[in-house]
Amino acid sequence: MNIAQIAQARYTTKAFDPERKIPEEIVEQLCAVLRNAPSSVNSQPWHFIIADSPEAKARVAKATQGGFSYNEAKLRNASHVIVLCGRARLDDAHLDAVIAQENSDGRFATPEAMAMQDKTRRFYVNLHQNEMKDDRSWIERQIYIALGGLLLAAGAVNVDACPMEGFDAALLDAELGLAAQGLSSVVLVALGYRGADDFNASLPKSRLAEAVLFTRL
Amino acid sequence: MNIAQIAQARYTTKAFDPERKIPEEIVEQLCAVLRNAPSSVNSQPWHFIIADSPEAKARVAKATQGGFSYNEAKLRNASHVIVLCGRARLDDAHLDAVIAQENSDGRFATPEAMAMQDKTRRFYVNLHQNEMKDDRSWIERQIYIALGGLLLAAGAVNVDACPMEGFDAALLDAELGLAAQGLSSVVLVALGYRGADDFNASLPKSRLAEAVLFTRL
Repeated sequence: MNIAQIAQARYTTKAFDPERKIPEEIVEQLCAVLRNAPSSVNSQPWHFIIADSPEAKARVAKATQGGFSYNEAKLRNASHVIVLCGRARLDDAHLDAVIAQENSDGRFATPEAMAMQDKTRRFYVNLHQNEMKDDRSWIERQIYIALGGLLLAAGAVNVDACPMEGFDAALLDAELGLAAQGLSSVVLVALGYRGADDFNASLPKSRLAEAVLFTRL
Repeated sequence: MNIAQIAQARYTTKAFDPERKIPEEIVEQLCAVLRNAPSSVNSQPWHFIIADSPEAKARVAKATQGGFSYNEAKLRNASHVIVLCGRARLDDAHLDAVIAQENSDGRFATPEAMAMQDKTRRFYVNLHQNEMKDDRSWIERQIYIALGGLLLAAGAVNVDACPMEGFDAALLDAELGLAAQGLSSVVLVALGYRGADDFNASLPKSRLAEAVLFTRL
């Protein structure tokens, strides 16, 4: 299948087979897609928490208390659950780590090039954090780049997926101690293989018509 | 290449070859990836504007006036530029169009199933638009799912890409008359083939270490 066919064929799985696990080499491929996801000024404002044991998935599933119980079984029966987290602040420690990594990876021919890259990134981080004050939504948008890549990549390796915004983020953050790590949960993805009870598997995908979605200037 | 290798190999192109055009069948594949991108409650809160003539790209490039001139050449020299837009409001007309499309695509066995789907989507749209009042950032996040898929898909079909947040959105919205269409520009992607002057092509990609980015619960 080409990438368009993969995008067409993938869909949101509503029920997972609790007996099937994703092979470790496939999980590693999906983690590589997350790690290599692009982000504005290479800010990498994210952290990914992976739950694959019954105990770990149950901890994530606690966040379905209240109005989100419809997501509990997906989180418990999936092979792997990924909690996509955002960094609360892109502070000096984080920005220093990013520039040091870029330097050790060999991206700078001169100290001046390194200083320029650091300055540019700090300019945009400061713009969002201190001037526009939209850093929370800016960071969340970057995380959704990673999410979009992950969902398409899952389709490419025949892994079924269900992205979920429906969970109690404050409850999950408390359960996982995220605030103390400077993180907060943004969105969840359950990964695995559809169960026989996945009603969505047999339904046709629906998208608005091309003429509605696209304009050629 | 497998999908992890594609994600690793793709990078942000800083200079395009102005002579090379993306074949139409590849553009169609990338549009299919955009069209099939998932979104919360299948809200599809987006519209994609494609500029590929010199005149059309010049109109988009007007939005680099002011502090964004560093992006002008990318927009002019790329083969295709896509303006990813968000809908200002997910109003009744839009929600009616989505449910009608889902119905005509055959997703509902009964009128009750259709009514339930419509009710669920309206519940979440109302939640974001009227209760949480975060509909703008919610919609933008969905658009970044499409962005993430597009960038990975471009890598899969050997198309180079440069996503850009650095443009004057108000200016572009005025140039393209987006407000009258209930739209606003969110992010740009230039697509094409790297030029010989793309300094980023020869630099190694840099990402924070796995141990920094991932936790296994």
